[in-house]
Amino acid sequence: MQKVVVLGVGMTKFGKHSDKSLKDLGKEALTHAVQDANIELSQIEAAYVGNAGAGLITGQECIRGQVILSSAGLSGIPIINTENACASGSTAFHLAWMAVASGLYDIVLALGAEKMFHPEKNRVFSVLESSTDIEQLSSFPGYGEHKEGQSIFMDLYAWTIKNYMTKYDIDERVLAKIAVKNSYNGSLNPYAQYQKAQSLEEVLESRIISDPLRLKMCSPISDGAAAAIICSEKAARLYTNKPVYVAASVLTSGSQKQEEMQTVERASRKAFELANIGPKDLRVVEVHDAAASGELLMYDQLGLCSPGEGARLIESGATKIGGKIPVNPSGGLISRGHPIGATGIAQIAEITWQLRGQAGARQIPNQPKVGLTENAGGYLNGDNGATCIHIFKL
Amino acid sequence: MQKVVVLGVGMTKFGKHSDKSLKDLGKEALTHAVQDANIELSQIEAAYVGNAGAGLITGQECIRGQVILSSAGLSGIPIINTENACASGSTAFHLAWMAVASGLYDIVLALGAEKMFHPEKNRVFSVLESSTDIEQLSSFPGYGEHKEGQSIFMDLYAWTIKNYMTKYDIDERVLAKIAVKNSYNGSLNPYAQYQKAQSLEEVLESRIISDPLRLKMCSPISDGAAAAIICSEKAARLYTNKPVYVAASVLTSGSQKQEEMQTVERASRKAFELANIGPKDLRVVEVHDAAASGELLMYDQLGLCSPGEGARLIESGATKIGGKIPVNPSGGLISRGHPIGATGIAQIAEITWQLRGQAGARQIPNQPKVGLTENAGGYLNGDNGATCIHIFKL
Repeated sequence: MQKVVVLGVGMTKFGKHSDKSLKDLGKEALTHAVQDANIELSQIEAAYVGNAGAGLITGQECIRGQVILSSAGLSGIPIINTENACASGSTAFHLAWMAVASGLYDIVLALGAEKMFHPEKNRVFSVLESSTDIEQLSSFPGYGEHKEGQSIFMDLYAWTIKNYMTKYDIDERVLAKIAVKNSYNGSLNPYAQYQKAQSLEEVLESRIISDPLRLKMCSPISDGAAAAIICSEKAARLYTNKPVYVAASVLTSGSQKQEEMQTVERASRKAFELANIGPKDLRVVEVHDAAASGELLMYDQLGLCSPGEGARLIESGATKIGGKIPVNPSGGLISRGHPIGATGIAQIAEITWQLRGQAGARQIPNQPKVGLTENAGGYLNGDNGATCIHIFKL
Repeated sequence: MQKVVVLGVGMTKFGKHSDKSLKDLGKEALTHAVQDANIELSQIEAAYVGNAGAGLITGQECIRGQVILSSAGLSGIPIINTENACASGSTAFHLAWMAVASGLYDIVLALGAEKMFHPEKNRVFSVLESSTDIEQLSSFPGYGEHKEGQSIFMDLYAWTIKNYMTKYDIDERVLAKIAVKNSYNGSLNPYAQYQKAQSLEEVLESRIISDPLRLKMCSPISDGAAAAIICSEKAARLYTNKPVYVAASVLTSGSQKQEEMQTVERASRKAFELANIGPKDLRVVEVHDAAASGELLMYDQLGLCSPGEGARLIESGATKIGGKIPVNPSGGLISRGHPIGATGIAQIAEITWQLRGQAGARQIPNQPKVGLTENAGGYLNGDNGATCIHIFKL
């Protein structure tokens, strides 16, 4: 298989964009990525588009990518629509990677776009519910405590982290510290939905969403889009002197076999093997902190620390910008926002900028050469419906 | 890129399956394909799942493939959910082909599944409407004559074929003859929704759906699933002495550029080039006759006859089983039925059976060695949202 390069990335600011349609958001991200790649729109040979909820939210199902891209002047090429719940964006990127790695195309697009705000708030929750087996909703962990009008995932996250916190004797200040770190990072990120640094007190005083998760520990509802132009090493030589390589692209889903490792562990181990590195070689990481608890669990599962040592890792400051292994310099899902189909590609955009030294106020010192993204979607078999790990190298 | 083989295929009977869920249908097709491939379920390394409307019809969005496959005992592998309206099945197959051709996997699954029947009939029509740009519905050709409670696509097909019939002085008996042929073929196909041969009079006396299209010229609402196990040439050697090769897999979408050829012409020309054959080398073809008019247009666009000579081709009997170039020996969408995400893979199953000489009563004499499938989905830019052409060779 051929080597694959991220040639250009772009995204919209994430947030509430009442005046912008999915088309507007997609076009904006695409335009930025094409400019960043220094190519013409007409050079894109195929497109892989991730979106999770347009069918349920706007009624636009079936050919979502064609509709978005046509409005941006891109048509007549192979267009693949894909969804994997909150991992839809990284799934689109994985397919785009495969298309170039196979030698089928030289230059392709991965686009993630999502419009979550809708006057009927229940439509948003129907998307989250359809991220699991809708026939098994009542057996969802934490479903018994589920409140109308909020994400069932926050109940699931709460249920999961409570067990972990009991096991390792961790209190809610640990979760709050992750939220504080990410809100500070978000305050440095012009693309973030929330750009205000929160104090520990502010986080701990915000209302309970699902105990022990508080409002400021949870990702919000968001609109937004992110795009990446991916190309072969040969094509990259024409457009850049500093290619960012895709060193590994691994997707998997939760297993029914009790003895199998969880998806994040399985996928990341395979990705480390493919990239020929270990967790200690990472210099920047973007993880799927749909809630602060998710980031805490990822410290363990990605091997950034020993099992149960996650609390110590955040306390030590190691995961701050300037720390030993910065996590979510973008602000993560909590602060950058979480337009679900766009998140995976926004993570990849952040790592690309960090590796190029273009991350502005949130740039990690000693420009990193190796970064990882972890994007997860849906819930099934006691694990993620889909987990996608990407490793990038200069 | 590596050579790719269709190792096994399977499908459910298409029709109204009130007692079966999308899971039941998917499991049945998968089980048949795995048996046909002579492998174990656990040998499947990745799955590509096409479905168009479950989000709007059942509320199951986001991780449809995981939900279907988990219930069939397949989990813990990469699962990609894809949709391209009525071309969702062939799009899933195209991705599965790419996955093996790239060398990433040896054995993968392509599954198409759809449940269209629902007590609220409007849900079905919402899926069809979302197969175009829903914001532009009112500018849809034929939308002015659109009647509540029927597919807007039949109006579009009627509008398109009326122009063609006027141009080439064709009367409705030509469309009826296609329906008669396909109903006869369907009568020989145990998987077909309709297994009764219709007379010319019966077709011409059925009610008008959208002039000149009559009920028995149109594909019905259907439930069903179809699956294909795809593998590398090397893996195929372990399981079969008679591999069916994928000689070309081409996907494209409608272009905004007026000067560009239509998708079917563009995609099929490229497919012929890749397979190193011409239309005259084909011995069996499955086309997307969502209405009989579609098959008539495909005669031209695939190069099975000279422009405008389609009427003569059907009149001559050349496209019957036993004719020079049999088209839709399965009965096509009109008779086999059209569970939209499953159709593309059902076409591929039919060609596989024909090339292997396993098509039973509808087997084409002088067992064909080369076949083609044409699967189209959605409407945008005055053309298909997606068109997928596959060529298969013994």
